[in-house]
Amino acid sequence: MNEPLREEKVFKDPVHHYVYVRDQTIWDLINTKEFQRLRRIRQLGTTYLTFHGAEHSRFSHSLGVYEITRRIISQFERNGYPDWPVEERLVSLCAALLHDVGHGPFSHSLEEIFDTDHEEWTCNILLGDTDINKVLRQVSEDFPEKVAAVIQKTYPKPIVVSLISSQMDADRMDYLLRDAYFTGVNYGTFDLERILRVLRPYQGKIVVKESGMHAVEHYLMSRYQMYWQIYFHPVTRSSEIILRQIFRRAHELNQQGYTFRWMADPIQKLLNNTLSLQDYLKLDESMAQMAFAEWSEEADEILSDLCRRFLNRRLYKYVTIEPDEALLAEVADAMLAVGLNPDYHMEIDYPFDLPYDVYKPDQNNGEKKEKAPILLLDSEDGISEISVKSDIVRSITGLRQGQYHLYFPEEPLAQNKDRLSERMIKLFKLD
Amino acid sequence: MNEPLREEKVFKDPVHHYVYVRDQTIWDLINTKEFQRLRRIRQLGTTYLTFHGAEHSRFSHSLGVYEITRRIISQFERNGYPDWPVEERLVSLCAALLHDVGHGPFSHSLEEIFDTDHEEWTCNILLGDTDINKVLRQVSEDFPEKVAAVIQKTYPKPIVVSLISSQMDADRMDYLLRDAYFTGVNYGTFDLERILRVLRPYQGKIVVKESGMHAVEHYLMSRYQMYWQIYFHPVTRSSEIILRQIFRRAHELNQQGYTFRWMADPIQKLLNNTLSLQDYLKLDESMAQMAFAEWSEEADEILSDLCRRFLNRRLYKYVTIEPDEALLAEVADAMLAVGLNPDYHMEIDYPFDLPYDVYKPDQNNGEKKEKAPILLLDSEDGISEISVKSDIVRSITGLRQGQYHLYFPEEPLAQNKDRLSERMIKLFKLD
Amino acid sequence: MNEPLREEKVFKDPVHHYVYVRDQTIWDLINTKEFQRLRRIRQLGTTYLTFHGAEHSRFSHSLGVYEITRRIISQFERNGYPDWPVEERLVSLCAALLHDVGHGPFSHSLEEIFDTDHEEWTCNILLGDTDINKVLRQVSEDFPEKVAAVIQKTYPKPIVVSLISSQMDADRMDYLLRDAYFTGVNYGTFDLERILRVLRPYQGKIVVKESGMHAVEHYLMSRYQMYWQIYFHPVTRSSEIILRQIFRRAHELNQQGYTFRWMADPIQKLLNNTLSLQDYLKLDESMAQMAFAEWSEEADEILSDLCRRFLNRRLYKYVTIEPDEALLAEVADAMLAVGLNPDYHMEIDYPFDLPYDVYKPDQNNGEKKEKAPILLLDSEDGISEISVKSDIVRSITGLRQGQYHLYFPEEPLAQNKDRLSERMIKLFKLD
Amino acid sequence: MNEPLREEKVFKDPVHHYVYVRDQTIWDLINTKEFQRLRRIRQLGTTYLTFHGAEHSRFSHSLGVYEITRRIISQFERNGYPDWPVEERLVSLCAALLHDVGHGPFSHSLEEIFDTDHEEWTCNILLGDTDINKVLRQVSEDFPEKVAAVIQKTYPKPIVVSLISSQMDADRMDYLLRDAYFTGVNYGTFDLERILRVLRPYQGKIVVKESGMHAVEHYLMSRYQMYWQIYFHPVTRSSEIILRQIFRRAHELNQQGYTFRWMADPIQKLLNNTLSLQDYLKLDESMAQMAFAEWSEEADEILSDLCRRFLNRRLYKYVTIEPDEALLAEVADAMLAVGLNPDYHMEIDYPFDLPYDVYKPDQNNGEKKEKAPILLLDSEDGISEISVKSDIVRSITGLRQGQYHLYFPEEPLAQNKDRLSERMIKLFKLD
Repeated sequence: MNEPLREEKVFKDPVHHYVYVRDQTIWDLINTKEFQRLRRIRQLGTTYLTFHGAEHSRFSHSLGVYEITRRIISQFERNGYPDWPVEERLVSLCAALLHDVGHGPFSHSLEEIFDTDHEEWTCNILLGDTDINKVLRQVSEDFPEKVAAVIQKTYPKPIVVSLISSQMDADRMDYLLRDAYFTGVNYGTFDLERILRVLRPYQGKIVVKESGMHAVEHYLMSRYQMYWQIYFHPVTRSSEIILRQIFRRAHELNQQGYTFRWMADPIQKLLNNTLSLQDYLKLDESMAQMAFAEWSEEADEILSDLCRRFLNRRLYKYVTIEPDEALLAEVADAMLAVGLNPDYHMEIDYPFDLPYDVYKPDQNNGEKKEKAPILLLDSEDGISEISVKSDIVRSITGLRQGQYHLYFPEEPLAQNKDRLSERMIKLFKLD
Repeated sequence: MNEPLREEKVFKDPVHHYVYVRDQTIWDLINTKEFQRLRRIRQLGTTYLTFHGAEHSRFSHSLGVYEITRRIISQFERNGYPDWPVEERLVSLCAALLHDVGHGPFSHSLEEIFDTDHEEWTCNILLGDTDINKVLRQVSEDFPEKVAAVIQKTYPKPIVVSLISSQMDADRMDYLLRDAYFTGVNYGTFDLERILRVLRPYQGKIVVKESGMHAVEHYLMSRYQMYWQIYFHPVTRSSEIILRQIFRRAHELNQQGYTFRWMADPIQKLLNNTLSLQDYLKLDESMAQMAFAEWSEEADEILSDLCRRFLNRRLYKYVTIEPDEALLAEVADAMLAVGLNPDYHMEIDYPFDLPYDVYKPDQNNGEKKEKAPILLLDSEDGISEISVKSDIVRSITGLRQGQYHLYFPEEPLAQNKDRLSERMIKLFKLD
Repeated sequence: MNEPLREEKVFKDPVHHYVYVRDQTIWDLINTKEFQRLRRIRQLGTTYLTFHGAEHSRFSHSLGVYEITRRIISQFERNGYPDWPVEERLVSLCAALLHDVGHGPFSHSLEEIFDTDHEEWTCNILLGDTDINKVLRQVSEDFPEKVAAVIQKTYPKPIVVSLISSQMDADRMDYLLRDAYFTGVNYGTFDLERILRVLRPYQGKIVVKESGMHAVEHYLMSRYQMYWQIYFHPVTRSSEIILRQIFRRAHELNQQGYTFRWMADPIQKLLNNTLSLQDYLKLDESMAQMAFAEWSEEADEILSDLCRRFLNRRLYKYVTIEPDEALLAEVADAMLAVGLNPDYHMEIDYPFDLPYDVYKPDQNNGEKKEKAPILLLDSEDGISEISVKSDIVRSITGLRQGQYHLYFPEEPLAQNKDRLSERMIKLFKLD
Repeated sequence: MNEPLREEKVFKDPVHHYVYVRDQTIWDLINTKEFQRLRRIRQLGTTYLTFHGAEHSRFSHSLGVYEITRRIISQFERNGYPDWPVEERLVSLCAALLHDVGHGPFSHSLEEIFDTDHEEWTCNILLGDTDINKVLRQVSEDFPEKVAAVIQKTYPKPIVVSLISSQMDADRMDYLLRDAYFTGVNYGTFDLERILRVLRPYQGKIVVKESGMHAVEHYLMSRYQMYWQIYFHPVTRSSEIILRQIFRRAHELNQQGYTFRWMADPIQKLLNNTLSLQDYLKLDESMAQMAFAEWSEEADEILSDLCRRFLNRRLYKYVTIEPDEALLAEVADAMLAVGLNPDYHMEIDYPFDLPYDVYKPDQNNGEKKEKAPILLLDSEDGISEISVKSDIVRSITGLRQGQYHLYFPEEPLAQNKDRLSERMIKLFKLD
């Protein structure tokens, strides 16, 4: 059973000033070993190699999502809005706090190589034999399932889901502000206090009072800037490519029966695709870094080179290209000519292959990531989707400014320029 | 030879907005693997367990110290002050950038257990067979020695030393601002721009124009607050105690010939006191965290309990006491009564045992950490030490508000309350 | 002759931290009575009635424009860019400092009623019998004309003009940041430091290094938001309408030979269109406020009511309408029906009638306000206008989200609802 | 009767982000003409002549004091603390909003010359024939008297008084933060959110939870810095001296039957000491500025010179002295020798003659300005005054770093150096 704490606990937080905890259940969840593990997983993966301040962890982000959710609900309760189901407070707070608990080290990269999914792990952690499950079950026997349902977006009350999963949810609002703070850019600083004030529960949805439209526009413009200047930064993409290649190579070698030097047991099981929940919980970024350190001395040159590149930040260079088959074949030939492996030493990147996230209102075509659009509530016209009312939102919706980039290691090419055609030298900008 | 870069490089920095690099030598130093390693060592050790934002690394701090030094020298050059030796620019910048390069994981704790010293390692890295040494030697054959001399405070020109080592040096100015930013407190935000403007090179020293006295007062008050509220925070002290106990226990077991499960080679050599420079450079916080993860499953219960405490943040509790021998003997007996080991499960802490750092002008009594005092330059009276002129500085100089704290694990005592005397129950606040 | 100051002077400024003065000429200009007069004229006219923090004066803005210009030129000089004419430094700084010196109280409103123009007054002040003219003439006999030419955009070197008059000039950069700071909104906080770093003098123009494109996008988005949320705010528009009506009424009464109570001499001359330069310099906002206070007790009811509305902030209400002739005629009839005067008590406002300022690159159609567009400099393609390269800029260029608003006094209509048709009651939102 | 507003109103505020109004009574008070008049009176008098950003009005400060009080009470209500008398909410909010409503232009200076007192005027406004009185009486017949009693510190419940009048009240907390924001210094930025969280109503007093001691220390250090660096700034003191001399001279001339040019009626009555409440309400800073403008052309040279000095910011110069009778007599002789009037052209200033405000806990000696000390609440020791517990507070309490300054007009002395002794030339720093 959840009880209010005798005395409110506070965490000093650089983004929200303070995070306030008033429930025993929330306090106990924060103190589980599974939640503490999030301190060892960075929020922005390899971004710290581009923006050195971005060393913050998923632990602080999770507290932040919880805090924003708490403030939204508080406002709903204080004003006694009838469309907010007051009995959903605790399940909402728990889901907000725990929505990322299944993340592993460098999850996005890992998930592309191994067939895992952090949302699945989140549910395993909530429902499996963990301290988190024990704390949740003290509320009620079916409470872990309820929290998991919110995270999986199958909870019967969509208003609860939309708090942590919509086009303007607590998750996004926290990460935009937090990532802006830690990278040091000022694009992401929209007016959170204003937005929290204009949210309203309304017929099973969360909507925005029309007077808050400008604040929402500002939020969407911030988001746009953060995507292009932080999340899709080509140097960060370079480090992600190297990371992915490392895991791809290790996986491949493992399948080929290659004998590795020492390897931590959970890493071995990751390569074998035999991770149990307990193994998974041991995986964190220090274990991954240690693996890279060990592999940087492996006999396999591709693997050891990639690991040294990652640890010492000697990333791949990139150039902008218009990719076509003939050109890519020529690039691959050039790679071979200087003794490189096109499979590992060149990669075409186009940020739109990512789950692209700049505001799209009409995402109901059955894909996994669809998110509830932002709705304005007007006393006269009722509900309208924001891009109907806002010229600026309409004008940036669907904007795509991505370019194709070719990534490659510069040094071996530069050292063997004599084996390259003029065209390739120009393409690689080696002149 | 150092050359200006064809195009200035910038790093986005949350504290200084941008860090500007204009010298090939500085750029090359940043890109060495020894410098990149600082990304894997946190600036504030275990403080992130108290202030979750404090996850920033020595890498960003080192860039910050460099940047402040660069701005000071720039101002000196722009104004053409005759007392600034212009030929010392590069050695000053290199020393600023590299002054912390010898830090290992959780250095302060480790240094208390093993007989190591990060300043010594810094010199080994500068002078030994490293990429850093190679870059420095390109400037001139004796350049590595010159940089090392600045860091060891033996450089013949004291004005260069005082840039990175005095009561108001670039090192402190950066860490106060940076630690305030990342923890999220606003105590540390003095007016850096103002201070940089009022510094003057003067007869081999760096002094402050008297009109800048108030800015210096503000800096010293910020420092006072940061010490008591961040650096000496009792929860941080608790995590440091546990960390130290972990290493002490591992060291002891190793000396007793205990057989450990797998252990990374540099950790083994650390326990054996046989670390080479190359081994030392492999030590980072991910390796330390991995060791804790492994040891948390060791058979030795003291070691495994300490490691689990650290990883899962179940720290020791503390109470304020007036320590006397009789009382401490009684506490030790209580520990034994519940099956604890007084050697590991109780510790008296008094922050003044630390290198205490609040402003002390008269530190010339031969101790290691002596730092040049802050001097004011007045057109009429010449030079005076700041506490002579400033009432507020004089009044806080030497203030000591420390208390003795007793640290101990709460749960085993709480679970065995029946074996404790009333006095001990009261002392441990178990009622 | 201009000399460097023996000791640099600084002003503490909330937006730029410090404003630095190093030239005797600049220092002397700031201390003239004509420049000090800017302390008595608010930067944002009546905006303080909407955003109570917006009480800052043209004095601080003028210092800010000077400071940004100084930093741009400093950067050009430090890097020794050959396309910057170094001999133009002082004329640029003086023009930046003085560009607004001809503003009178609530200039924009006054200029619509009386046939005056603040830029003309600026030139009169520079060239007439003033302290400013005396200071400028100490530089050289033709120096006042040179400064005036920069402000009038007729100076032979367009690069100097563009510093203070282009789509991204020191004037705009200061007012966006300053107005955001004092109103307290966070829309306007683009990254000034970054923008200053990427500006380059290039063939008689100031261009932006292509790597700075994102910072410029952010600046343009900030500007867009500031326009719609601050400068075109309908409550501010309401106060401007009342202000304009006050002066229109006083002007009309004066022409009709109405006998006013006491009136300050410059106000009388303003109404008579006979202001001399010395009279104009006496006009400031305290004189205007005093006039309103006096007029609030005049016998003419329209004038006294308008003045009381302004002083006590009982502004006109507004509703959104689609204006057509028939509707406006009906509104006018409704006004008459309740004893109001349609000439003064209703006004249609459409922000686009203003000198609309959101980014428009193609402003070469001979109009007065044309401003140099923002140009990007790319090592490969040379110069391109920003909207060619930036999707987001292209998408917001020319966006018009203005609506027609009808302004009117609410109370007399509400008190006489019985005399209004249902349609009018609905239109005025009196139900 | 007070009613909650149908829809909460917000003011954008740069210091508190938003000011929230939820009561009809508060909303109506803000819209009275007497409260709107505060927009025409600067919060910091002449400080804008030293710190150009300090142009903010008493209107914004009054909203700020209201908002802090509202947040404190909200917290008390939300936690249901039994020692907070819930029925005192509205009277507290009204007193907070209106506590400064009796301020006139440059009150502190005026009050020294004329025998007026802004607190008395405040009560006259609350109790006299004003719109404010009308609004208050709608709550209940005796409500105006109740609000006035809180402001006069005679209200029977001291806890209500202490909200707006104690060593750490809403008034001070707002002005420290606000004045820091608008001047642009960062000394004043203590952690308001933290302090609001640790306040507790306790036995008729407001006390601070002991865990908040450090936040209070930080507040007191901020205050200390603000006093010495903003409020007692010698340039501001110079402008206040000139202002006082202006009124003193006008008063004297008026008593002597001097015939002035035109003078606004309330100014005439001020000089005659015959101001009615309605006259007083017409006095604002634009009227004062207009008077200075008129007087700057008066025949009396002392008055016209002082007014021109004020308007054009040609302030008195100052030097630090050790005043003794002989020296002052010599200075007076020097004044006479160059044709100056010692009565108006020299003034000794010692900031301690001001109501000195740096923290003094023991102010119960019957003086007017006594303020409740700051009390800490500890679960064990009960209540203690903060300087008992805090070393840093104890050490700065009673610190006095004031110096005697001599103020004088520089130019006439410099132009007549030949008539001065060497000693005087040195004293005036004319060499």
